Amino acid sequence: MNAWTLVYDGFDPEKEDLREALCTLGNGYFATRGAASEVAADDVHYPGTYLAGGYNRLETEVSGRTIENEDLVNFPNWLALTFRIEGDEWFDLRRVEILAYRQELRMKEGVLGRDVRFRDSHGRITVMRQRRFVHMRFPHLAALETVLSAENWSGALELRTAIDGRVVNDGVRRYRGLNNRHLEPLQSWAEGDSLFLRTRTSQSRLEMVQGVRTEVFSGESPLATERTTNARPELIVQTLPLNLNQNEPIRVEKTLALYTSRDWAISEPGVAAAKALARAPSFAEMLEKHRATWEHLWHRFDIRIEGRENNGVEAEMILRLHIFHLLQTVSLHAIDLDVGVPSRGWHGEAYRGHVFWDELYIFPMLNLRVPEITRTLLTYRYRRLEEARAMAREAGLRGAMYPWQSGSDGREESQRLHLNPRSGRWLPDNTHLQKHVNAAIAWNAWQYYQATEDAEFLHYHGAEMILEIARFWSSKASWNGEMERYEIRGVMGPDEYHDAYPGVDRPGLDNNAYTNVMAVWCLLTAFKVLDALPADRRDELVDTLELGEKELAQWDRISRRMRLCFHDEGIISQFEGYGELEEFDWETYRAKHGQVMRLDRILEAEDDTPNRYKVSKQADVLMLFYLFSSEELREIFQRLGYPFEYETIPRNVDYYLKRTSHGSTLSQIVHSWVLARSDRDRSWDLFKMALHSDIDDIQGGTTPEGIHLGAMAGTVDLVQRGYTGLEMRGEVLHFNPCLPRDLSRLNFNIRYRGQSVSVTVTHDRLVLSCLMCGEKPIRIGWRDEVRELHGGKSLEFVL
Amino acid sequence: MNAWTLVYDGFDPEKEDLREALCTLGNGYFATRGAASEVAADDVHYPGTYLAGGYNRLETEVSGRTIENEDLVNFPNWLALTFRIEGDEWFDLRRVEILAYRQELRMKEGVLGRDVRFRDSHGRITVMRQRRFVHMRFPHLAALETVLSAENWSGALELRTAIDGRVVNDGVRRYRGLNNRHLEPLQSWAEGDSLFLRTRTSQSRLEMVQGVRTEVFSGESPLATERTTNARPELIVQTLPLNLNQNEPIRVEKTLALYTSRDWAISEPGVAAAKALARAPSFAEMLEKHRATWEHLWHRFDIRIEGRENNGVEAEMILRLHIFHLLQTVSLHAIDLDVGVPSRGWHGEAYRGHVFWDELYIFPMLNLRVPEITRTLLTYRYRRLEEARAMAREAGLRGAMYPWQSGSDGREESQRLHLNPRSGRWLPDNTHLQKHVNAAIAWNAWQYYQATEDAEFLHYHGAEMILEIARFWSSKASWNGEMERYEIRGVMGPDEYHDAYPGVDRPGLDNNAYTNVMAVWCLLTAFKVLDALPADRRDELVDTLELGEKELAQWDRISRRMRLCFHDEGIISQFEGYGELEEFDWETYRAKHGQVMRLDRILEAEDDTPNRYKVSKQADVLMLFYLFSSEELREIFQRLGYPFEYETIPRNVDYYLKRTSHGSTLSQIVHSWVLARSDRDRSWDLFKMALHSDIDDIQGGTTPEGIHLGAMAGTVDLVQRGYTGLEMRGEVLHFNPCLPRDLSRLNFNIRYRGQSVSVTVTHDRLVLSCLMCGEKPIRIGWRDEVRELHGGKSLEFVL
Repeated sequence: MNAWTLVYDGFDPEKEDLREALCTLGNGYFATRGAASEVAADDVHYPGTYLAGGYNRLETEVSGRTIENEDLVNFPNWLALTFRIEGDEWFDLRRVEILAYRQELRMKEGVLGRDVRFRDSHGRITVMRQRRFVHMRFPHLAALETVLSAENWSGALELRTAIDGRVVNDGVRRYRGLNNRHLEPLQSWAEGDSLFLRTRTSQSRLEMVQGVRTEVFSGESPLATERTTNARPELIVQTLPLNLNQNEPIRVEKTLALYTSRDWAISEPGVAAAKALARAPSFAEMLEKHRATWEHLWHRFDIRIEGRENNGVEAEMILRLHIFHLLQTVSLHAIDLDVGVPSRGWHGEAYRGHVFWDELYIFPMLNLRVPEITRTLLTYRYRRLEEARAMAREAGLRGAMYPWQSGSDGREESQRLHLNPRSGRWLPDNTHLQKHVNAAIAWNAWQYYQATEDAEFLHYHGAEMILEIARFWSSKASWNGEMERYEIRGVMGPDEYHDAYPGVDRPGLDNNAYTNVMAVWCLLTAFKVLDALPADRRDELVDTLELGEKELAQWDRISRRMRLCFHDEGIISQFEGYGELEEFDWETYRAKHGQVMRLDRILEAEDDTPNRYKVSKQADVLMLFYLFSSEELREIFQRLGYPFEYETIPRNVDYYLKRTSHGSTLSQIVHSWVLARSDRDRSWDLFKMALHSDIDDIQGGTTPEGIHLGAMAGTVDLVQRGYTGLEMRGEVLHFNPCLPRDLSRLNFNIRYRGQSVSVTVTHDRLVLSCLMCGEKPIRIGWRDEVRELHGGKSLEFVL
Repeated sequence: MNAWTLVYDGFDPEKEDLREALCTLGNGYFATRGAASEVAADDVHYPGTYLAGGYNRLETEVSGRTIENEDLVNFPNWLALTFRIEGDEWFDLRRVEILAYRQELRMKEGVLGRDVRFRDSHGRITVMRQRRFVHMRFPHLAALETVLSAENWSGALELRTAIDGRVVNDGVRRYRGLNNRHLEPLQSWAEGDSLFLRTRTSQSRLEMVQGVRTEVFSGESPLATERTTNARPELIVQTLPLNLNQNEPIRVEKTLALYTSRDWAISEPGVAAAKALARAPSFAEMLEKHRATWEHLWHRFDIRIEGRENNGVEAEMILRLHIFHLLQTVSLHAIDLDVGVPSRGWHGEAYRGHVFWDELYIFPMLNLRVPEITRTLLTYRYRRLEEARAMAREAGLRGAMYPWQSGSDGREESQRLHLNPRSGRWLPDNTHLQKHVNAAIAWNAWQYYQATEDAEFLHYHGAEMILEIARFWSSKASWNGEMERYEIRGVMGPDEYHDAYPGVDRPGLDNNAYTNVMAVWCLLTAFKVLDALPADRRDELVDTLELGEKELAQWDRISRRMRLCFHDEGIISQFEGYGELEEFDWETYRAKHGQVMRLDRILEAEDDTPNRYKVSKQADVLMLFYLFSSEELREIFQRLGYPFEYETIPRNVDYYLKRTSHGSTLSQIVHSWVLARSDRDRSWDLFKMALHSDIDDIQGGTTPEGIHLGAMAGTVDLVQRGYTGLEMRGEVLHFNPCLPRDLSRLNFNIRYRGQSVSVTVTHDRLVLSCLMCGEKPIRIGWRDEVRELHGGKSLEFVL
């Protein structure tokens, strides 16, 4: 096993969907351009950019897949480049005898390679080797190199190259009944070696122009050949007659430029694409710069692991795959765009490109690597603050109420019905009641500020978001005079198994512990934010938001009197009344159904509901232990006048883990995290489960619909923060390492408040080195002491 | 005189063009949307957004002017809202007897008011009062309120409201032969009270949707009336029959929403405009928030002046007008856009919206107020770095060669021919040889960093720009083996009177002193930048730019051996050979032509050329004394091995001021600046000239074509930095005040490295107060000492 390469040897049609999802290429720009706009529409999913490597996907450079069996040309695969050997059909893997097949995602250099050696019906043996990349330095460029060799024959060969605008999105079976065509063809044209296609996204009316240049070489010499061009508005095709001689390979370079009407610094996308294509150098030269950029990226992002037996290499490879996917979705190119992080990546069609709360798991990794990316993603939220305010207003509340699912313009896009494929029933979907997404946004803004001290962001964007979210919670909380407590009623926590009380028509639950604690945290953080603002900006903001003393006093009161519920002596009730639910018969169900991750579907199909039981898809009480240190949590509980003892955490962890089905990819992260110190082996097992969830598609079929970005980034964060005990609190960067037994050494670089720190952890040592020559030392918290780490120096701690 | 309001009493058709230019409204968003894209095209000027107050402009909400005498409706003025009193024609100022007319630009609140009282041919006396604003908090909104009162009659009145897409740009007479229609009509539609029009910019293909809502009130009660809608793709009109009773005024609110396909956080502009319009509150409510936002802006930007007699009030009012115009062009709304600062503002059609080097005069004011705006404007340059690299490459040079004039995609847009209206001849235009724009960009990036310590910007954008510009100068410099000096040949300095040697065909001059010194400064700053980068980012950048030790050594050599030329014992030659030019007979020409600002045109019309003479439109040698303190300049000269004595500055100032025609609006700023200490009265006179250059259109006709933003901002900077001696050098903020005799007190707030400082200067005191509670004190340089200014504290210095 090589820790830098994902290899598939042999061809397996059954697995190609999964392989494609795992090998899709991107660069943080490509897919987002159509997508970021398109995801606005209800029931419209988006044209992600496919530059993948699977077999049975009929993809083009644009996005999605082409429609099969069209008369003009059919591109089974290979990025709208195909060929036909004299006397044969257009190349189709399914119709030839495959002698060898190998696909390699070379993560170090960001290149996907695919080699196939095959024999056709005439006994001719041909080898095709392809390499492709989406450029990491030049966001608008991508390239595909194809080398064709005849092993035992010579003869004529026809090459076809095209841009195909007939793509549809049908990667998710259950969405196929919905509108899946998102590009209106406008125009196509040819200019010399280059073809261009102008389309418009159907809902957001963005124009997108792609240009491709196709060049053919024998060795280093270009091969002149007559081209026939066939242009229709939706499809433009060039055909090139060639001769392939035995053992004299032909190399085809296909270079792609993509621009949209939302790009900066262009005249219009057609002019920009033509200029970019004319200036694009050779495949080799582009590849060189692409590799160099990946080298820089890996310097920032890589996590080096050593472990027992193969544990290190495997974990390292999968972590890299996860980092690789994150960087395809949001890279440095995203910094100038208006993008959020869709939970299935930009190329996964599941969830239709919508943005949820997964950022909570993704940001910590970015905050400590390239915080400018987080800033971009937070700015995406800031730009939608006005919409969130309108939504609060329309719900009779104040402040900003961000949506559970959202797309381009930031309105609530959660479905109101969903299908249980098990029962075939359409059911009301109450997930939009997950108002806790608001707390996650405030949390993320504050964490970013902790990691960067970016005063400009806090003063101008962060503060306003956090204050408006605090105001939302304050208006959402209602006074229970009898209990003398504030309550938050009618919401859902992160655990989607529970959306109502059993037998009650009204959706939503009351006093979800996670939500209520997070609301209190938001109110307390709002005060911190006001303190952190310079007087003039504070005055300005208080005036703009009409934030009076009376309202602030109300926030303070709520932050002292929010209600939490408990049962079984010290168990924090997931929500009010949780203690009265029935215990669930896990054993019977596991015996009957094996995998019970989607227990909700199983129960609903039996006319039952998880609402009746003490079961969780994801134990949301445990989220509190994931987000807060016990010190921080104790402070909040004490402020509220609730007990918080030494045993509170282990008892609750134990209680809820027993009642959880791990139906969410995110839950393994949280569970592994909360066990990292108390039960290292179980934590490691859960970590490995999380590591494998996409690469092995352990949910059975969800990965081909799109990778799970939150879980991917979460595994990296678990290594980075969970196993090192890294915590940013106030002005101090704390460490408290605890390696799993199967790992022997961890090493990675982080960026903290403008400085670079190399972190190395073994079972007996923590070594921190400051790579940068900053003036101000970093304050490192270690047990009860605080030490200073200066530029160019190291600190070593014995565990 | 009121220091907050620009008032025009009485109607003067001759002056309306000028008044409109000075009263145009904006908010940093409105005009830019069409414009920022459109200015790309050669010979295409752009549709600026007109929300102005003049008479003879036939403007609409979009931009430019409507075509007159169309059949459907004609909107002479008044923002596509007009009326017809029963038995009369559509209202036309030219056909009624004007009894009173008053126009007021109320800068404090950002409102333009216009009142007219008139008598029609039937003897009916009517009063119309209008107020309008472009919203400063909500960038997509604007509003117009019109109150109509019948003084001595009652009767029927027909109101027409529209959106008119037939606008053209014909504000500059000499451009009228060029294509002046920039909007393709696509679609119009009505929804209840609201009208919508979708257009596309003709060159950049951006879609733009405007919506307007027209409501009619009597007192606070809405008046129901039947509306007739007439829709064509390019024009949509609603007609409302009303009754106006004597002394019962009718109020019409017209609310406008504008979105384009380049806006963030929208689905598509049509949906966004409809939503914004539906949510827009009443005129009064919008106005309240608009005013509050202006109050915040003035808190940051205002400059309070006290002076002898009326000097204070007048200067204060004009400075506010200048600040007001700057904030219309680039406000906080610009922060999220991709915009530069066009030298004539967004609404001036002159120079076709192109961006030059005027930023050099504009940024200092923004750096010390809202540096995020400067960051945006620098990012605009950064986004065009790739284009600048391509231009250098195409010119056989290395690094980045930014264009002299540019628009959307950053390519060189300078005209190659220009017309001398005096001679009627088209002449070659060599202004693109003003490569010094590159030094200005590097200068601006570095000054921004000095003002903010924004490490993220420097590390990721600023450093790359500065290094690539340094590389450009290094490749542009050639070695003169005989002199053992590096030379820069074939360029133009800021003085546009000199573009070649007399009698020589080759355009350009050699060893322009300003250019050569700035090139050296760029190389030295590149080294500072490399030192300021953290090691990891430096490695990354050096690798990406392939910046070897050899190249850096070459930069160092050039920075020690750049050639400067001198003549007349200590006069820095504007360029090599300047000393040999003929002296110019100023007296004769002044006697003959009076105003000789455009001496180039006068001479060319006489078959002569300023290239023969020691004359300058703008003395570019003096730019050095404007940009550098004498200490800094001495350092550079010493490094180069040239003498720099105490008399160098006054001798050169004296020498060149005598030989300058002040043909550039920017030159008065520079000249006033360099005299601020040595000749306070003359400096003050030049300052007043600069103050009046737009408000009184002292160049005679150029202001109606667009205000001069560089000169406007320059006057503010002269007060802010020139008269206070404010200088950011290293970690220290230096002061060295010197008030003109006519002023007695100056007071304003600045933002420096995240802190707010109030600055007060009188003839005998400088008082600095830190308004903010920052942790880190500000280091204040005063004469030879450095003192610390802490949050909440003041420092007082006796002059």
